[in-house]
Amino acid sequence: MKESQSPVRRGRGRRPEAEVRRAVLAATGEILFESGLGGVTFEKVAARSCTSKMTLYKYWPSPGALALEGYFAATEQTLAFPDTGDIERDLKSQLHAFVRLLTDDPDGPVIAELVGAAQSDPDLATALAEKYERPRRRLAVERLSRAQQRGQIRADVDLGVVVDQLWGACYHRLLLPSETLDLAFTDALVSNLIRGIGCEIPDEK
Amino acid sequence: MKESQSPVRRGRGRRPEAEVRRAVLAATGEILFESGLGGVTFEKVAARSCTSKMTLYKYWPSPGALALEGYFAATEQTLAFPDTGDIERDLKSQLHAFVRLLTDDPDGPVIAELVGAAQSDPDLATALAEKYERPRRRLAVERLSRAQQRGQIRADVDLGVVVDQLWGACYHRLLLPSETLDLAFTDALVSNLIRGIGCEIPDEK
Repeated sequence: MKESQSPVRRGRGRRPEAEVRRAVLAATGEILFESGLGGVTFEKVAARSCTSKMTLYKYWPSPGALALEGYFAATEQTLAFPDTGDIERDLKSQLHAFVRLLTDDPDGPVIAELVGAAQSDPDLATALAEKYERPRRRLAVERLSRAQQRGQIRADVDLGVVVDQLWGACYHRLLLPSETLDLAFTDALVSNLIRGIGCEIPDEK
Repeated sequence: MKESQSPVRRGRGRRPEAEVRRAVLAATGEILFESGLGGVTFEKVAARSCTSKMTLYKYWPSPGALALEGYFAATEQTLAFPDTGDIERDLKSQLHAFVRLLTDDPDGPVIAELVGAAQSDPDLATALAEKYERPRRRLAVERLSRAQQRGQIRADVDLGVVVDQLWGACYHRLLLPSETLDLAFTDALVSNLIRGIGCEIPDEK
């Protein structure tokens, strides 16, 4: 056990699986941020991580799925969902962190490229849904759910829809850009949704 | 003039530019709906429309940009923005038509593929923004703006943000699918936004 964790590489011996995966994901992340998604091929990753293409085919269904996992390994996205008890403030600070990530270079362009490529790569689409979209959606709904239990969000609101109107709206500005994606935008998203955009019908006085 | 509009093709004569463009776009639309975006190459379109690849290079910067224009020529998307005076009802009926288009086969998959490909094709991204995203956004803001002038939407609401919270939310479910994109979803989008999801602070009585 101890020997296998040693940094000294054994001549023709096999590296343990976990070590191989780490090396592969590190190499993938490097190539992804250097050359974009188009640069991530099994051939280049195998060469840089000293593995074989056969090994890569064993663990990843496509270069896109590998790129996605390399992206998470590289960014270690720990986008926390704070809970100070103030849902409006917490949503705004979470969305600030999210939009900083989306607009940061090179992280932002890479996630746009991954979502883009998923539209014509079913393996990447599956990986994106399972490893990214669903877990993140679940975290958001958990936080919103606590606010609903505390009576801060109306009981009849479908919280899944709220996710699309906050984080989904940010993806819209990322993927179909024509208006600015910034912190003021996310603050407006939260205000519109919490307070509503409709006017009260005025009392006749 | 009259001769050039004749359906009889002249031997080695040149077809008028408008006729060539129509033939090219029709061929592009056919190939797009038969084989998806990946099938649209200058070579195939040239062969089917009896034009040369040179002609295609002259008018379109990339097969992606050509595919986008072929898509619009084929679908003739006349997504009207109704104005009955009732903004809530009008938004719901517009979003119903929009989601039917997004979830219709093969129109829906094709628009997802086009937005996807735009993430790594700058020419397609430009065409998508100029010919699709901006004009549609403008139409939506015009309709919302009339509601705002009539006092149905609060005066301080940024109408551009509302577009992302309605149509953008639909794109989110299309491009990062994990929840159902249907008519009930769009109704919930409108209700959440018009009324707001927050609870009124109860009066102490």
